[in-house]
Amino acid sequence: MARGQGVYVLRLKGFEEAELERFPGEVSGLAEIGKAFNAFRKAGCQQICFAGIVKRPDFKALKPDMKGMSLLPKAISAARKGDDALLSFMIKVFEDEGFEIIGADEAAGNLKAPTGLLAGPAPSDEELQDLRKAAQVALEIGRLDIGQGAIVANGLVLCVEAQEGTDEMLKRCAELPDEIRGSAEARLGVLVKRPKPQQERRIDLPTIGTRTLEGVAAAGLTGIGYEADGALIIDVDAVRDLADRLGVFLYGFPKDQGP
Amino acid sequence: MARGQGVYVLRLKGFEEAELERFPGEVSGLAEIGKAFNAFRKAGCQQICFAGIVKRPDFKALKPDMKGMSLLPKAISAARKGDDALLSFMIKVFEDEGFEIIGADEAAGNLKAPTGLLAGPAPSDEELQDLRKAAQVALEIGRLDIGQGAIVANGLVLCVEAQEGTDEMLKRCAELPDEIRGSAEARLGVLVKRPKPQQERRIDLPTIGTRTLEGVAAAGLTGIGYEADGALIIDVDAVRDLADRLGVFLYGFPKDQGP
Repeated sequence: MARGQGVYVLRLKGFEEAELERFPGEVSGLAEIGKAFNAFRKAGCQQICFAGIVKRPDFKALKPDMKGMSLLPKAISAARKGDDALLSFMIKVFEDEGFEIIGADEAAGNLKAPTGLLAGPAPSDEELQDLRKAAQVALEIGRLDIGQGAIVANGLVLCVEAQEGTDEMLKRCAELPDEIRGSAEARLGVLVKRPKPQQERRIDLPTIGTRTLEGVAAAGLTGIGYEADGALIIDVDAVRDLADRLGVFLYGFPKDQGP
Repeated sequence: MARGQGVYVLRLKGFEEAELERFPGEVSGLAEIGKAFNAFRKAGCQQICFAGIVKRPDFKALKPDMKGMSLLPKAISAARKGDDALLSFMIKVFEDEGFEIIGADEAAGNLKAPTGLLAGPAPSDEELQDLRKAAQVALEIGRLDIGQGAIVANGLVLCVEAQEGTDEMLKRCAELPDEIRGSAEARLGVLVKRPKPQQERRIDLPTIGTRTLEGVAAAGLTGIGYEADGALIIDVDAVRDLADRLGVFLYGFPKDQGP
């Protein structure tokens, strides 16, 4: 790893990614928490980074080990409060066992989003106005534990992200009536991604990658706004190149001031 | 008409529906307000009901008459504040000319949604819990002038409606991962539709029809909640029959108490 430490990858059953098989590690069921703790200790792990996408499981279908069995009722009751409560609960479980949880930005070479213009053309006043409104909507949506993204064009909220994810939201945006959205010829509207205000920031920060940029361009939007230090830019060099090429701006606004 | 009055239908250019051609009336451009006022007066209209779907126009492409020209700047500035401000502005314009604006429930035979169970099986405690949360989310979404609907399953907000409309939201819900939503075999989750708290209630009330029910069933949801007196049931007999047949509940909660 870039930081010179060894890596041990515990892959979760049902969510394994083939490219991770080249790292030392093993596969564990989602509720085999005792097995996971033992595996990490045996490998000498002290820091743990949660990464990748894990869909909310069907709790009734899980096969917990002893440790998992003792934690499952609390996990289910946390899950009823929302994704965020479930993640915070899982972090607590690992911390109680003495592990340190670190963010994906600390563990890998991804860029934690900086303030100001990162790539593409500088946003106009109108575009900044849409960015500000989308940032406000995303904040409210986050406070309600609904999601981390929103799209605003000309002051109108086109889409709000919930469980479908950003790529799906962008596809839907591209299918809205022509009259209310932009196009390749006349770009209009801004996507904003930001964390939920109450969320655990070491896991599940919103991410921006080349696929996000392609979706934004296909939906006729002008750019992407994100909270500085509150989003991860995946493969930042490729993202910057593509943003310049597509003419899509990437703009980080400070968390406290708002954009 | 059921109330024994004559009907005059002004059809808006670009949004004409063929089945309305059998009524007396004519076609008018969206910004030909002077022409519309004259037509209504000549036909002896005193009450006006706004009905049907009008997409937000491209203001730059409108062809206003003299009256339209004088109103357009204010309409555009209202539109920037959101759909609701634009609709309220349009109502004010008609009222200032001496017309009375009446709701679609007053004008036609549709049912303004009643309190309590209208059709289908009575919701369980868990289903009422999802209904309550969806009602709360829809209220917040409405307050932000985003939309009038939300879907919650097992405490998780699956979808929030913005510009895409309810049918699109239901389609998206049906495509979410199996783990977080219901199915035909094991129904889960509730759609709630309610007006924005600050909105003009004589136009643009949320509607529920047979297509809504079909979408709800296809998405594996258990039922539909709506604010009593805050939604229109279109073709209520057909809706009630279909709800019973599909086993989908229709439940009206009082506006002030919440569900």
